[in-house]
Amino acid sequence: MSNYDIVIVGAGPVGLMLSSCLARWGYKIKHIDNRAEPTATGRADGIQPRSLDLLRNMGLKRQIMAHEPAKVYEVAFWDPASKGIERTGTWPSCPKFIDARYPFTTLLHQGLIERVFIEDIEKNGTHIDRPWTITGFKNDGKDPKYPVEVSLAHVDGSQKETVRAKYLFSGEGARSFVREQLKIPMIYRDPIAHVWGVMDGVVRTNFPDIKMKCTIHSDTGSIMVIPRENNMVRLYIQIASSTDKDWNPRKTATAEEVQAHAQQIFKPYHISWDRIEWFSVYPIGQGIAERYTLDERVFMGGDACHTHSPKAGQGMNTAFLDAVNLAWKIHHVEAGLASRALLATYESERREIADSLLAFDAKYAKLFSERLPSAGEVGAASSTSTSSPPAAPENAFITTFKESCEFTSGYGVAYAPNPLNWSPDHHPFQHPLFRSRAGTGTGTTTLLRPGRILPPATVTRVVDANERHLEHEIPLNGAFRLYVMAGDAVHRAPARAALADFAACVAAKGSFLRCFARPGAFADGAGVSSSTDGAGVSSLDAAAAGDAADDASTAYAASPASYHERHTPHSPFFSLAIVLAAARRDIDIARDVPGVLARYRDSVYADDVWDARVPDAGAAAHAKFGVGTEEGAVVVVRPDGYVGCVVGLVEGRGTVEALDGYFGAVVGRRIGGERAGL
Amino acid sequence: MSNYDIVIVGAGPVGLMLSSCLARWGYKIKHIDNRAEPTATGRADGIQPRSLDLLRNMGLKRQIMAHEPAKVYEVAFWDPASKGIERTGTWPSCPKFIDARYPFTTLLHQGLIERVFIEDIEKNGTHIDRPWTITGFKNDGKDPKYPVEVSLAHVDGSQKETVRAKYLFSGEGARSFVREQLKIPMIYRDPIAHVWGVMDGVVRTNFPDIKMKCTIHSDTGSIMVIPRENNMVRLYIQIASSTDKDWNPRKTATAEEVQAHAQQIFKPYHISWDRIEWFSVYPIGQGIAERYTLDERVFMGGDACHTHSPKAGQGMNTAFLDAVNLAWKIHHVEAGLASRALLATYESERREIADSLLAFDAKYAKLFSERLPSAGEVGAASSTSTSSPPAAPENAFITTFKESCEFTSGYGVAYAPNPLNWSPDHHPFQHPLFRSRAGTGTGTTTLLRPGRILPPATVTRVVDANERHLEHEIPLNGAFRLYVMAGDAVHRAPARAALADFAACVAAKGSFLRCFARPGAFADGAGVSSSTDGAGVSSLDAAAAGDAADDASTAYAASPASYHERHTPHSPFFSLAIVLAAARRDIDIARDVPGVLARYRDSVYADDVWDARVPDAGAAAHAKFGVGTEEGAVVVVRPDGYVGCVVGLVEGRGTVEALDGYFGAVVGRRIGGERAGL
Repeated sequence: MSNYDIVIVGAGPVGLMLSSCLARWGYKIKHIDNRAEPTATGRADGIQPRSLDLLRNMGLKRQIMAHEPAKVYEVAFWDPASKGIERTGTWPSCPKFIDARYPFTTLLHQGLIERVFIEDIEKNGTHIDRPWTITGFKNDGKDPKYPVEVSLAHVDGSQKETVRAKYLFSGEGARSFVREQLKIPMIYRDPIAHVWGVMDGVVRTNFPDIKMKCTIHSDTGSIMVIPRENNMVRLYIQIASSTDKDWNPRKTATAEEVQAHAQQIFKPYHISWDRIEWFSVYPIGQGIAERYTLDERVFMGGDACHTHSPKAGQGMNTAFLDAVNLAWKIHHVEAGLASRALLATYESERREIADSLLAFDAKYAKLFSERLPSAGEVGAASSTSTSSPPAAPENAFITTFKESCEFTSGYGVAYAPNPLNWSPDHHPFQHPLFRSRAGTGTGTTTLLRPGRILPPATVTRVVDANERHLEHEIPLNGAFRLYVMAGDAVHRAPARAALADFAACVAAKGSFLRCFARPGAFADGAGVSSSTDGAGVSSLDAAAAGDAADDASTAYAASPASYHERHTPHSPFFSLAIVLAAARRDIDIARDVPGVLARYRDSVYADDVWDARVPDAGAAAHAKFGVGTEEGAVVVVRPDGYVGCVVGLVEGRGTVEALDGYFGAVVGRRIGGERAGL
Repeated sequence: MSNYDIVIVGAGPVGLMLSSCLARWGYKIKHIDNRAEPTATGRADGIQPRSLDLLRNMGLKRQIMAHEPAKVYEVAFWDPASKGIERTGTWPSCPKFIDARYPFTTLLHQGLIERVFIEDIEKNGTHIDRPWTITGFKNDGKDPKYPVEVSLAHVDGSQKETVRAKYLFSGEGARSFVREQLKIPMIYRDPIAHVWGVMDGVVRTNFPDIKMKCTIHSDTGSIMVIPRENNMVRLYIQIASSTDKDWNPRKTATAEEVQAHAQQIFKPYHISWDRIEWFSVYPIGQGIAERYTLDERVFMGGDACHTHSPKAGQGMNTAFLDAVNLAWKIHHVEAGLASRALLATYESERREIADSLLAFDAKYAKLFSERLPSAGEVGAASSTSTSSPPAAPENAFITTFKESCEFTSGYGVAYAPNPLNWSPDHHPFQHPLFRSRAGTGTGTTTLLRPGRILPPATVTRVVDANERHLEHEIPLNGAFRLYVMAGDAVHRAPARAALADFAACVAAKGSFLRCFARPGAFADGAGVSSSTDGAGVSSLDAAAAGDAADDASTAYAASPASYHERHTPHSPFFSLAIVLAAARRDIDIARDVPGVLARYRDSVYADDVWDARVPDAGAAAHAKFGVGTEEGAVVVVRPDGYVGCVVGLVEGRGTVEALDGYFGAVVGRRIGGERAGL
């Protein structure tokens, strides 16, 4: 019987993202899908700005863009008018008040997105077996290292295989065998259900906004228009709703009926189809799984956990973020950094997001399906042919839409306080140097909020003068990211001293960096072989560490860094970047970046690029983060891109003490106790 | 015997670019190379900003960037100091005074660049035969349609083939068989010759600028450092010069000798090699071919026509532009637009550029090879550790470098006045509506200069609200590009009337657009079948037109446009874009874009994106082009991206009259005579 780190069932967005993460971090994966091929046509297609950030961070954005997807920058609202429909306004898809690197939605056929992941997964040595299905599983613990037994079968029944794994993941979609077997109920929060028709095709029309995202309300029904790659357009048409008098969840419609219906709605414009690529009618309700896992061995994510209407384009995006959230937590537990308690935060963090999504979706879908009785009621909201935003009152649908931009772009997601997301009230470790928006500690505040994404900032890389996107400079490598915002350490002595003390303390015995170091990482500098420190990694979990010794996954953690290793030279769990509030030409790394920090020389940045959002700032990244140039800060970002905590960068050992405390809470054991005095 | 439109010999940069252009325009190509594989290592590697524009316009930039090339934003100058070398200054590779979309040099192994082209060529149905070589050719005119006979052979002698072609192109490099056969001499402009060593490898060093482009002068020699993809670095080391006392053009050096020499030069820094990917020593002189063609049937380009030192990174870039210049001219002659006289402008335009390049290179190479005697002389030029640019006098090398930035970036290239590049003094057709920088005609000026590249401008596409790069919106499709800068035609009646008159005149019988229209293109609107007009295309060259009828190449020109054809719906030789000086939300295409112009609805742009270069302009693209919002202009851009002429957009028929005159001079016959009155 073969052993795997994880068995992943389903090669839709959630399964592929999980596989892509774990494959690049060296895990042994059994990945199956019950379809013979990736999605051929139709299904999800909207990549939100936040998801595009994530794909960029994974090095996959270019491959997505190679397919020339459609990009939605604005949404047009069309409403009933005296003769058919008229445009009553437009609104940015991702308005300027959201600080997004890519302020648009990317639209591409799901099959092409899947293929980008499949190529990446295969490059990292994992293969997807198709068409295979799961026939049974049990967490029997017979092998403590691989406690889960999973039975798999080829869809045609010709082959069967039983494997053992550390984890089983269901990315099976709404009809999840795993969820059924676990008897986890779906909770239907909104009793209203809908039947939707969706049609992808190439059209001829004189409707002026056919290349825009549009919500069209007419006296004869509603449509959503979504532009697509290759000159295609997707139309969503609501066919039935449980609020209808003659509601029938099995109601269906032919393509011809839907086209005729659409032609009615589009009047006075004409529309005809050159070809239809995909057409489907499906009922959908708003459900959320009561649990995402029972034992923290068998997990679910994506549509297996939450279903909702396709209107706000959230399904695939939520699935991506489910997977990334779980991936790094499994990694940190299996690679020997964190205790198993970390895994509990997957459900607590992601289920809360799904809850918000369903609440949003219910409101949005309800409004969308309302038939507005006449143009008069919304005519006042018109913003066409005026150069200023509409001042007149808007209808509830438009108001909701605008309020929801931050949520739908993906930037509204905020994880609640927990050991990963520091807060002044709830975190198990408190220290005066933690910074928060409310201004605790020494009174210094930050604009960053733990549990939210790190905002974009453009900086100059010192070694090669390249302008770079700071938020993407550390790739999705499974490590925590420490942005050492060093203030003006080039010119100001206190900031210089603070950076030097940080460099000394972070390299001192017992520090978080030292505790989880690669063998030999500190051999030259601090005089103590870090392999001694390394032995301490698993002191709270000796059995797991012993088991792990022969694992491919922990071989990654134990291998020494090469001379050319840029991001994780000291520890596979920490990547550092140093940002100096100075002009690039004034920075001399040998002089200005002390001690072990010099090992991150290729990740030293000059905060000297002008930014229109903070036009008067001398150091735009510091300003956007709310970090001063006199007293800097260390910004800790979780491996999935969310801010973990912000610690003031001051002289003495306090900065590293606070970080030791934060990481101690993350990994589930005390860090820093052994640290020698400065 | 097989017939081809063209036989291309050599699959280096010039041959590949020519093949890539002609293949996408539907020509039948025989392409051979005497190497069994694309370049494996070494050779040219610098893509200048202007070339990257071109690759972007061809849709090939993304494939280049997928290889994660190094990008050079700055150049560092190192000079002799009391102990070894020290940095005496840095300077942007493409300073801000140059308005470049991509202000950096892209460095990538030539083989990877070649593969991007090969993939593109194969996508368009052309294949490169390797290893094949040319053994003979003659323009015997035995077949007037395919006047050139070319003899080809497999390098191993096992196969031979004789083909006939309309054209033969040599992209063979410095040792061109074709050039030798034609007995065209190379003119050596600068008697100084050099022997260079070049070494690509992965190094370990504490030299701080190893990821920058550097010019290093030490008391023991000079080196140029060029960063490369995959952590590599290229070093150019001058081994001998004809100005040396013991000059020997056959002088050579081993890799070990060059490494030892480099280690001396780098002192006080250390450098060692993990591996060497490529090492070569080669003599080079500065030569230019006396002619690029004798009969306008057999052409040469790239290194076959001009050789020079590799220092300024111009070889591949000049080759690219040679090829594009020739490609569209062959296309316009063969597709029936222009007379053969157009082909003469290939040599006149490109040889003048090569002349300038050699003059620049001689000056630059001479300075580079000078051994500066001490640090004292250049110490005053130091700009390190100051936040302002150096005020002290600089040495001649640095001064030349800075002056040459525009040239080396590719933006300094300016074609002289000729029928393609309108000028107030030299163009065969004059009209008061032509605009120039000097302010001829009605006194209205423009900032654009015929013979120079169109500057970058960011605009909003009206149909989908996407922010787009105007200069790349019309792809390299072989057509002239007409940017109708319509001023504020949305709000101002005179501008509106001017646009309407332009739309009417450009669609009227006898206009340049109508003369070269696809069959049926104007059938709906103007009431006269354009197939009648089409018959007039070859009135000056009836025989060629008759021959052309059964050609694949002219099938392209003759085929009717599909409903979804965006760029060339009326004529394969003209792509239009309409730019309105108004906010996107205020533009209604059905109302604001009249007549036949509405057919370019997917190429209508709002000039409403703020630009830091013209911060106070309400319409940045208009402002950058020097076109007013009260009176607009039609900017004609040649198929290779260079401005052809600028014509004021005014009420009446004058605008189209001027364009008819310009295009008449380009194609070699009178246009517009038949036009009916407005």
